[in-house]
Amino acid sequence: MKVLMIGDIMGEPGRRSVARLLPKLIANHAIDVVVGNGENVAGGFGITPDLVDDLFDLGVSVITTGNHAWDKKEILDVFPREPRLLRPANYPAGVPGRGSYVFTTPGGESLGILHLMGRAFMPTIDCPFQVAKREVERLKTQVSAIVVDMHAEASSEKMAMGHYLDGLVTVVAGTHTHVQTADEQILPKGTAYITDIGMTGPLHSVIGIKKELAIEKFLTGMPRRFEVASGPTVFCALLVDLDAALGKVVSVERIRMMD
Amino acid sequence: MKVLMIGDIMGEPGRRSVARLLPKLIANHAIDVVVGNGENVAGGFGITPDLVDDLFDLGVSVITTGNHAWDKKEILDVFPREPRLLRPANYPAGVPGRGSYVFTTPGGESLGILHLMGRAFMPTIDCPFQVAKREVERLKTQVSAIVVDMHAEASSEKMAMGHYLDGLVTVVAGTHTHVQTADEQILPKGTAYITDIGMTGPLHSVIGIKKELAIEKFLTGMPRRFEVASGPTVFCALLVDLDAALGKVVSVERIRMMD
Amino acid sequence: MKVLMIGDIMGEPGRRSVARLLPKLIANHAIDVVVGNGENVAGGFGITPDLVDDLFDLGVSVITTGNHAWDKKEILDVFPREPRLLRPANYPAGVPGRGSYVFTTPGGESLGILHLMGRAFMPTIDCPFQVAKREVERLKTQVSAIVVDMHAEASSEKMAMGHYLDGLVTVVAGTHTHVQTADEQILPKGTAYITDIGMTGPLHSVIGIKKELAIEKFLTGMPRRFEVASGPTVFCALLVDLDAALGKVVSVERIRMMD
Amino acid sequence: MKVLMIGDIMGEPGRRSVARLLPKLIANHAIDVVVGNGENVAGGFGITPDLVDDLFDLGVSVITTGNHAWDKKEILDVFPREPRLLRPANYPAGVPGRGSYVFTTPGGESLGILHLMGRAFMPTIDCPFQVAKREVERLKTQVSAIVVDMHAEASSEKMAMGHYLDGLVTVVAGTHTHVQTADEQILPKGTAYITDIGMTGPLHSVIGIKKELAIEKFLTGMPRRFEVASGPTVFCALLVDLDAALGKVVSVERIRMMD
Ligand SMILES: [Fe+2]
Ligand SMILES: [Fe+2]
Ligand SMILES: [Fe+2]
Ligand SMILES: [Fe+2]
Ligand SMILES: [Fe+2]
Ligand SMILES: [Fe+2]
Ligand SMILES: [Fe+2]
Ligand SMILES: [Fe+2]
Repeated sequence: MKVLMIGDIMGEPGRRSVARLLPKLIANHAIDVVVGNGENVAGGFGITPDLVDDLFDLGVSVITTGNHAWDKKEILDVFPREPRLLRPANYPAGVPGRGSYVFTTPGGESLGILHLMGRAFMPTIDCPFQVAKREVERLKTQVSAIVVDMHAEASSEKMAMGHYLDGLVTVVAGTHTHVQTADEQILPKGTAYITDIGMTGPLHSVIGIKKELAIEKFLTGMPRRFEVASGPTVFCALLVDLDAALGKVVSVERIRMMD
Repeated sequence: MKVLMIGDIMGEPGRRSVARLLPKLIANHAIDVVVGNGENVAGGFGITPDLVDDLFDLGVSVITTGNHAWDKKEILDVFPREPRLLRPANYPAGVPGRGSYVFTTPGGESLGILHLMGRAFMPTIDCPFQVAKREVERLKTQVSAIVVDMHAEASSEKMAMGHYLDGLVTVVAGTHTHVQTADEQILPKGTAYITDIGMTGPLHSVIGIKKELAIEKFLTGMPRRFEVASGPTVFCALLVDLDAALGKVVSVERIRMMD
Repeated sequence: MKVLMIGDIMGEPGRRSVARLLPKLIANHAIDVVVGNGENVAGGFGITPDLVDDLFDLGVSVITTGNHAWDKKEILDVFPREPRLLRPANYPAGVPGRGSYVFTTPGGESLGILHLMGRAFMPTIDCPFQVAKREVERLKTQVSAIVVDMHAEASSEKMAMGHYLDGLVTVVAGTHTHVQTADEQILPKGTAYITDIGMTGPLHSVIGIKKELAIEKFLTGMPRRFEVASGPTVFCALLVDLDAALGKVVSVERIRMMD
Repeated sequence: MKVLMIGDIMGEPGRRSVARLLPKLIANHAIDVVVGNGENVAGGFGITPDLVDDLFDLGVSVITTGNHAWDKKEILDVFPREPRLLRPANYPAGVPGRGSYVFTTPGGESLGILHLMGRAFMPTIDCPFQVAKREVERLKTQVSAIVVDMHAEASSEKMAMGHYLDGLVTVVAGTHTHVQTADEQILPKGTAYITDIGMTGPLHSVIGIKKELAIEKFLTGMPRRFEVASGPTVFCALLVDLDAALGKVVSVERIRMMD
């Protein structure tokens, strides 16, 4: 089974980059499942019901999010009714939506997708490590292979999660910093890992935002309305070939394309 | 002029990796200047007077540090008297040491090294942007080429600094997260940039720390004495070829080697 | 000279409490100057041009603010042209507005008002301690008595500022936590001090916000639109009698009234 | 039943203040139970086995702690075997010790003591609100009256906890900021509340620390070894008269004495 995980898709430039590149990648690599992080598709902040449909139309199979999941109020009703739109599983009981999904290919192969969020320098929610163990055990009754989107700021928390789930899941891939890391690897017990897949969005920007606005914020300390940058884009993803029956990695490849 | 910038060197494993690989890199690439981040050389926390000498003996020309600069009390006296040992320039007036250095090769070419630290999720010190502009102007009276070690947690703050100094300095390279990023690039106005050079230290670890200890800290919320991990190491650096007279980048290459 | 300092005035309930109580307090105590913190007068978040006028009409002489100074965009133009509306003095150069004001009574007595903001758990701006020393020196060329509104989260940063300015200014009073502290005192070198004056606003609330909304935010980790609570109000202030010529405290009294 | 809750007892000056004042308070007010926060008794950082015994000898019935619970390694073994030494109940499963205790007077009246810790600007542990509800339900099978030590930084989190538990417990009292607040009150459903009891320790200090050291830390951004201040002390407590059978408050009084 070929799985493509796309990092935080940033605004319209990110969506257009996905529209241009994803169909070719799916065709060329015979990709079975696409997991895309959609927390920034709506002008950099959140996701709307229409954009959920757009991402599915573009070929995304399952959408993960993160701390920006709730930025657009109209999305709140979608979470409970659309199982392919995930929010981190370690939001507390009572929060709308789910944090995992089991995807089944036309050929009958299944893959668990688990979405977690770190807490270092992030909203204080339930412990991602406790929830990870519980959710992995639950999913393992249905699937052998699980890929994890660990949305977090601190490199230490992501690496700790990678090692914590090493051998228990097939992939742990980070999102949220909007910068791809160069540390893709197979951990000692067989799990594929990368600290951050990186953003898909405007290249000449500050994590996707117009650089002038971001610089002004750092210079003044004042709140600032942010806008998504324009210009050339970068497309960041992780391509994993895995054995869905065994839950084992066959190969892992980091993708960083510019267009 | 060939400049090699090595990211956070982590404990004894990091130093041994530098000892094994740096001489060959210097010889093979005819490297003129080596900037090494030494904030973690002393068991992961700080640097001692002896380890300053060790790094110089290994071929490091100038040592940068960061938030861990002060972990070992015996180093405080070294900062004022050793100009090749830097602490971030935006520590307030009165803090021991300096944040920049002008290195001159035997052939008479000069390079400015400027050390800054971000403030997002970090100690609250003076503004790195204000200080950067002031220090760059001052250094520009002596040199044409400046390389910057921007020690920071948030990807946004590092990218903002890269764009803020784009065209004014030759290189802006991040340190501190201990994970190499895959975004090395030439910014629109000509400055070479990478969000993080990455750690030189134990590969199978949580940012260099024994993974069991880091995981336990996340699971319990209790403070935990950390120890540097062992096993195979990763060496992370950025190799820049630059024209010292013009202050322009000739080429930039990210280095990630395992041994 | 009698100075009344009112803590964060919270929304319409806070303004109505000021309207009911301030005229009587001014009359009964022969108050000469009223310093009121207005960062929350506009529905809990920021201040508008009309509300600036309202506070002046209610008897406030000088308005301080804080981290919420910028919440309403239409106030940005008012800061440069209205010297009696302050933002913290340690916002960096280039930020609109000023951080201090010299008030002169009809009888010709003068008082300096200095507004500072802490950085612990707050926006990262310039150092309040460095700026305090510089601004106090500048104001001392014009006045003998200075009162300081130190807007900060951490009790340690406020107490450190109190001792740092002890003997140099007449009063250091904290704002921002919205809870009055019981530690009003004269510091060893003569400066009157309180860690927080406390909020003027709805009593049965979570720092002025409807309690159900605040609890829900803590329970879910999701962002939540906040609304100012209703019901009985609490009025919190600090009344200082000082010798404006000598810059010395005559007496200090904490005021906490409910209505 | 008369319950005295003493806030963070700071170092030797704090212990000596307790030694001088507590016996008289117990005698004069016929106090039945004393809850004392001991997280800072060992030189400002943590608590040792000997100091646990000292506090019991001085008349403290039950010791609460907080984020500094673990500062002294030798205390770790004491937590599991001494049920009257509490750590916050919302530390995750597997952390040594307990977060609640049922105290029974010689006359046979019982009181539940529940210890919680906030997460805003604090270590990220389990949710204090979820844990509070679960623990209160459990304790209610044994006792009618419960007093809560809510150890937290943010005033909003403490007030939210007060309202969350209003009517379910008898007292919610905050600790940790080391500054007594002036907002003692009976909440709408009958629970006695104060945002912070305040520190018992050196008066002329920065939250108990020598002021010069604290100021230097804010001025330099460098880590600094802290020492407990000396000089006159302040004793801060909350005295609650409650009906243990009904779980209702009879009266509540804030105590702030200097000596
Ligand atoms: Fe994102
Ligand atoms: Fe995010
Ligand atoms: Fe480091
Ligand atoms: Fe660092
Ligand atoms: Fe406020
Ligand atoms: Fe504020
Ligand atoms: Fe404490
Ligand atoms: Fe504490």
